Amino acid sequence: MPDAVAIDFGGTNIVGLRVAADGEVLARREAPSRVSEGAEAVMARIEAVARGLLGGGTRGVGIASPGLIDPERGICRNECANVPGWKGMRLAGRLAEATGLPAFAESDGNAAALAETWIGAAHGERVVLLLTLGTGIGGGIVSDGRIWRGASNGAGEFGHITIDYRGRRCPCGSIGCFEQHASAAAVGRAARERVASGASSAMLDLAGGDVQKIEAKTVFDAARTGDVVARTLVRETAVALAAGIGSLVNAFNPSAVVLAGGMALAGEALLAPVREELAAGRALPVMLAECRLLASALGADAVALGAAKVVFDRLEEGRG
Amino acid sequence: MPDAVAIDFGGTNIVGLRVAADGEVLARREAPSRVSEGAEAVMARIEAVARGLLGGGTRGVGIASPGLIDPERGICRNECANVPGWKGMRLAGRLAEATGLPAFAESDGNAAALAETWIGAAHGERVVLLLTLGTGIGGGIVSDGRIWRGASNGAGEFGHITIDYRGRRCPCGSIGCFEQHASAAAVGRAARERVASGASSAMLDLAGGDVQKIEAKTVFDAARTGDVVARTLVRETAVALAAGIGSLVNAFNPSAVVLAGGMALAGEALLAPVREELAAGRALPVMLAECRLLASALGADAVALGAAKVVFDRLEEGRG
Repeated sequence: MPDAVAIDFGGTNIVGLRVAADGEVLARREAPSRVSEGAEAVMARIEAVARGLLGGGTRGVGIASPGLIDPERGICRNECANVPGWKGMRLAGRLAEATGLPAFAESDGNAAALAETWIGAAHGERVVLLLTLGTGIGGGIVSDGRIWRGASNGAGEFGHITIDYRGRRCPCGSIGCFEQHASAAAVGRAARERVASGASSAMLDLAGGDVQKIEAKTVFDAARTGDVVARTLVRETAVALAAGIGSLVNAFNPSAVVLAGGMALAGEALLAPVREELAAGRALPVMLAECRLLASALGADAVALGAAKVVFDRLEEGRG
Repeated sequence: MPDAVAIDFGGTNIVGLRVAADGEVLARREAPSRVSEGAEAVMARIEAVARGLLGGGTRGVGIASPGLIDPERGICRNECANVPGWKGMRLAGRLAEATGLPAFAESDGNAAALAETWIGAAHGERVVLLLTLGTGIGGGIVSDGRIWRGASNGAGEFGHITIDYRGRRCPCGSIGCFEQHASAAAVGRAARERVASGASSAMLDLAGGDVQKIEAKTVFDAARTGDVVARTLVRETAVALAAGIGSLVNAFNPSAVVLAGGMALAGEALLAPVREELAAGRALPVMLAECRLLASALGADAVALGAAKVVFDRLEEGRG
């Protein structure tokens, strides 16, 4: 069976997989990103990871990166992931030169959405929105098995839809962005604020007595033990998530919404209250009736698996 | 040149056009909707308008209706436009039987978006979002010349994206829906509230001294004369509009956003402050740089023209 080598480049790690055409992971290599060393050093490490994974059946190489990726030119169009000089990086071109194989680049959100539709939580669904709940909220859109890109490959910036238009300022320059209320970072920040202002909560113990070590995971861990402050935070997070997801459901009419990223590991402890809020009115009933809210099935491998699927799809389209 | 007969069914009027394949309007007929008479009487009037427009070159009939339209089955899936019994109405089937021609049904928002992309403000644009600013905010999405429908033909309910998630309740059951802040009805309501609570404004004179007669048009008319209360309302409306449009721009990455409906007749008096707010941060610069904000070029004929285009497209696809 043919396979593809796929790279998930993130701010912390470079994860490489060799992936068979049916989605099976055949080999794995990782390296630290060390983004502060700059674009050239990072790219050299990515090339090394890719070369180290090549096998006899490898037909192409895929890379998924944060930022605005131009999949036709295979480059990154903006600075991202804090890599000095990443803007303009010839992701696909460099990997093709390093491996002698066709290479393709995709955004990490699009890749994850594609993977979950291919062999993950939303397998076979017609219109899929993926939201990555992390430092911010990233996204990807798949329609009839293909990435839906918008006019210039930028679609899916779900972290910057507005849910509170007279509210909290976002570093992006807007006000009340979804990710200011519902990202893992926002939940952690809200928890630290609440404990720092004197709320009595098991979260402080779970964080070893250090308020600054409270994060989203601490909130869900404490909520599971019945902690009242944490349970209130989970409920508030569910309301904000449902507001943003409801907006997306009403605008896109997806058949599935997949939650990914660290906070999605909370599973039903997060999904159940979000479903409740959606059913209470945050999404139109006619839309909600045909939409499933799911947690990622592929977890941390979703992005690299999606980059592999991009290779298979692009080669099949004959663009390779 | 072949032509199509197209019906725009709305809560007040039935507008019928015979439209050439290049978009030229060849004939026009109208009738009152009189929705209170019920679905059967309304449908009979629609059939009569359509039959009265048939010409020798007519190849098919299209109808655009409010509500959730199933374009494959040609029916309306929910009650809408206040017509008792409209749910389940065989819009396309009835028109095919009445005219002996292939007939197709589409939602009014999708039809208007398609028309503006075909021969209107967004001619030739790749990804187009249309927002109809009226009693509510309706919408439609066109991608690469085709209506983009979502998973079950419901995409484009832009009036029910959330911009103020702890704010004003919406009759849909959600909170802080876009149309509660930026529809023509919302602007009129805000103006009446402000004048009723004692604000001194030229709007009262323009409405003949009757607060209840103040509507969105009154606000824009008064703002043009420099009225301070009206100008504040226009600015507030622009902020709310930019919040919702910015969300859609960041999620969909459209190449054009077209504003339609009564309030869009204000033209640059509305568009200019919305563009300012978008540029001030409500949409991501990289998305905004490739997106044009436009007023409808087809006005009240957009929906019927789009229904005609649906006929041409569907016949060409060989589904007729």
